[in-house]
Amino acid sequence: MAKEILYVKIAKILEDQILSGTLRIGDKIPSIRSVQKIYDVSLNTVKLAFLELESKSLIESRPKSGYYVSKTSQRKFALPSVSKPEICEKESNPEDLISKVFDTLHHKNIRQFSLGVPDPGLLPIAKLNKGVIKAIRTMEDSGTAYEPVEGNLNLRRNVAKWSLVLEGKLSEDDIITTSGTMNAIFNCLMAVTKRGDTLAIESPVYFGIIQSAKAMGLNVIELPTHPITGVDIEVLRKNIHKIDVCCFISNFSNPLGSLMPEEVKKDLVELLTYHNIPLIEDDLYGNLYFGTSRPKPCKAFDEAGIVMWCGSVSKTLAPGYRVGWVAPGKYKEKILRQKLIQTISTPPLYQEVIADFMENGRYDHHLRGFRQKLHTNCLKYQRAVEEYFPENTKISQPQGGFVLWLELDNRIDTAKLYDVAVKQNICFAPGRIFTQHDQFNNCMRLNFALKWDESLESDLKRLGAIVKNVL
Amino acid sequence: MAKEILYVKIAKILEDQILSGTLRIGDKIPSIRSVQKIYDVSLNTVKLAFLELESKSLIESRPKSGYYVSKTSQRKFALPSVSKPEICEKESNPEDLISKVFDTLHHKNIRQFSLGVPDPGLLPIAKLNKGVIKAIRTMEDSGTAYEPVEGNLNLRRNVAKWSLVLEGKLSEDDIITTSGTMNAIFNCLMAVTKRGDTLAIESPVYFGIIQSAKAMGLNVIELPTHPITGVDIEVLRKNIHKIDVCCFISNFSNPLGSLMPEEVKKDLVELLTYHNIPLIEDDLYGNLYFGTSRPKPCKAFDEAGIVMWCGSVSKTLAPGYRVGWVAPGKYKEKILRQKLIQTISTPPLYQEVIADFMENGRYDHHLRGFRQKLHTNCLKYQRAVEEYFPENTKISQPQGGFVLWLELDNRIDTAKLYDVAVKQNICFAPGRIFTQHDQFNNCMRLNFALKWDESLESDLKRLGAIVKNVL
Repeated sequence: MAKEILYVKIAKILEDQILSGTLRIGDKIPSIRSVQKIYDVSLNTVKLAFLELESKSLIESRPKSGYYVSKTSQRKFALPSVSKPEICEKESNPEDLISKVFDTLHHKNIRQFSLGVPDPGLLPIAKLNKGVIKAIRTMEDSGTAYEPVEGNLNLRRNVAKWSLVLEGKLSEDDIITTSGTMNAIFNCLMAVTKRGDTLAIESPVYFGIIQSAKAMGLNVIELPTHPITGVDIEVLRKNIHKIDVCCFISNFSNPLGSLMPEEVKKDLVELLTYHNIPLIEDDLYGNLYFGTSRPKPCKAFDEAGIVMWCGSVSKTLAPGYRVGWVAPGKYKEKILRQKLIQTISTPPLYQEVIADFMENGRYDHHLRGFRQKLHTNCLKYQRAVEEYFPENTKISQPQGGFVLWLELDNRIDTAKLYDVAVKQNICFAPGRIFTQHDQFNNCMRLNFALKWDESLESDLKRLGAIVKNVL
Repeated sequence: MAKEILYVKIAKILEDQILSGTLRIGDKIPSIRSVQKIYDVSLNTVKLAFLELESKSLIESRPKSGYYVSKTSQRKFALPSVSKPEICEKESNPEDLISKVFDTLHHKNIRQFSLGVPDPGLLPIAKLNKGVIKAIRTMEDSGTAYEPVEGNLNLRRNVAKWSLVLEGKLSEDDIITTSGTMNAIFNCLMAVTKRGDTLAIESPVYFGIIQSAKAMGLNVIELPTHPITGVDIEVLRKNIHKIDVCCFISNFSNPLGSLMPEEVKKDLVELLTYHNIPLIEDDLYGNLYFGTSRPKPCKAFDEAGIVMWCGSVSKTLAPGYRVGWVAPGKYKEKILRQKLIQTISTPPLYQEVIADFMENGRYDHHLRGFRQKLHTNCLKYQRAVEEYFPENTKISQPQGGFVLWLELDNRIDTAKLYDVAVKQNICFAPGRIFTQHDQFNNCMRLNFALKWDESLESDLKRLGAIVKNVL
């Protein structure tokens, strides 16, 4: 604990210097070694402090040069509060609200800030189509036959190759393909839980995870979650005896965009390994980082096989392909059994297309451009919100992914605001759907994987005006 | 009951005349009206008797001409016994045996009699590929986006149109698409059951249904099943108070190939409606009839919405497409919720391809030729078994579909025989996998949706020799 306090202290001193303007955008930060000497602490402590600052986007590293105050370090609006869900608080199901949001998804004239998928205009659809035509020509029986339960070999091989970069040490035999990430998570929950078990998750969190768990008769504990560093593992530690399984979006959580620092990931895996608690790691946004490198998943620190690492291309290439996967560690047999009884196998064609896309460098190429667009959009959205929304609006600082979380004035109920906005052809995801408790009623999630243009900016302006108008 | 006994009596008299040779292949049967007069019974009773004979393939109707003794009426080998699973008998899980069979599925040099899918050579793959290319050109965003949870509109519309022929009275709003039939059944079970509930099924039955139910913690009651007329609904009636949900393959059950007579379907729906017990109707073989017309599903008699009618193109067009559907009646909202939490949506592309295939008459055209090939193969297989297998082999008389059920000498354990056969590059599905009880150990299922040629006949001959050799 002493170590933790020390690095937090040092980070705080530097943060104050940045926010007060002592250190300005583009300024070089003292080197790790000089900070070590100044405060007479270990190298590791300084590294942790820098990690903290980096994860808050206050500083950025430049290869072979050191750390600099980042461009995104100056912000007018505050960060959203750290969530404080009361454990065992009374629950209520926001299912009707979720249905309402889904009902407007396919209205073409409504601005879809609510979706959790990228605008098709940002996706390499023509290249994917070429891949489809190639695949039906090269695959045995054009992909019309059942494939082995574990899924397409080429895809498993390419996902495994990818994971090597993350030091995931996986082989094709460690991967099972699924119908998207939600299906991977559903499989994992079905495989390792029984009715009455308790699942620990972030708060706020993607509603699909809560809905899935509830449908299986699981109890759900929502943990306090920091908008920058993610779930509070100290609270998890205190409640560990109550918990049977965890599911966390470790990299760029949905909806907060938080990134669990590497040290925390290590601690988390250690904690769960000690208690033999499986971790379902939802890493579907991991490739959409704004920093210098792809953050490692918890799976990279998993020696005991307790982490079920889930991914997909639903957020990066084609949601409708429903191509995902899981590296299920020691739960492999159970997951295979689930897949078999739920659907026998997954369609081979799209898996082959994605495998080929990965293999030939096209995925990497697409991701490079896509990440840049998303980061730019993120900054533009933040600026637009700062310009058009009330001053007391709090706004998240995602380190990747493509959703922004806004915390509005306490008096605002975004579930009601939703109806007003939809009448003006704008829709967003109301905060209430991301929790089982009566909270986040004044929050909303915005999708920024849309094409930035005047009409988009004007819609953000109109949304800001709607909020102001309600106050 | 009196009515039932009467029609059975009349059918028996005619059956005896056919089997004794009094009525020969191609002979015209007395008309319904003349039989009515002879026995002084109602028209309906005679119709039931003829239906019974037709369902046993003893007679066949010729349009505008009447009934004739059918070509398949003369058989050397007996029918398999009616199954007599003891209700609440001790259970044991054949999971290892199932895994073993699955492990050999992708060995190219092994004759795959074990599969429950057609040989790709019998499928219109080139036409389907054209459909894929057309669909990626015509669909919005080439099908890369999520679709509404209920599934592709064109497919739902075409399935609904099809069901009209079956007097299913369904509209597109009554259909939800799924990832194949197994996924439809999984969804239905998840939607209407809770741990500890009891499911009634046929016996023997497709093992996926048992495995799925077990994984959900359901109790499974296997009902006695006649190889010609299907599940014994009188036994069901006697045990109705124990049962929470039923799942039957009403048309050409797997593995028996039995066809539930229309009257029985009506009675079944009436019985279950009275007790408000949902029926999951697995109708994936319904279009593969050898008779003159497509048998109606139970759904056609469902006024109260208790029947969840499940179908797919996995057995007729492309198993790997994973395109299926369910008409869930009054359980629609529950099924939609299941689909949403399990996988969000299904891939739109293949659904569009199948919808187009149906809409343009290509499906009908394919089915006509496919059915003929299957019927011919069925007769050839039966003849080959009669020629090459031991004389005491019993053999099913499927009315459609493409699996044959053999009951061998009592001393034979087909689980052991499997290992012997695989060493000689032949595999089949051992009877034991189609039940939770210790039964059908001397049975096997053979897939006859393969291209008939000398090598196939020779493999059947070799399999017969293996059986003889063990005795």
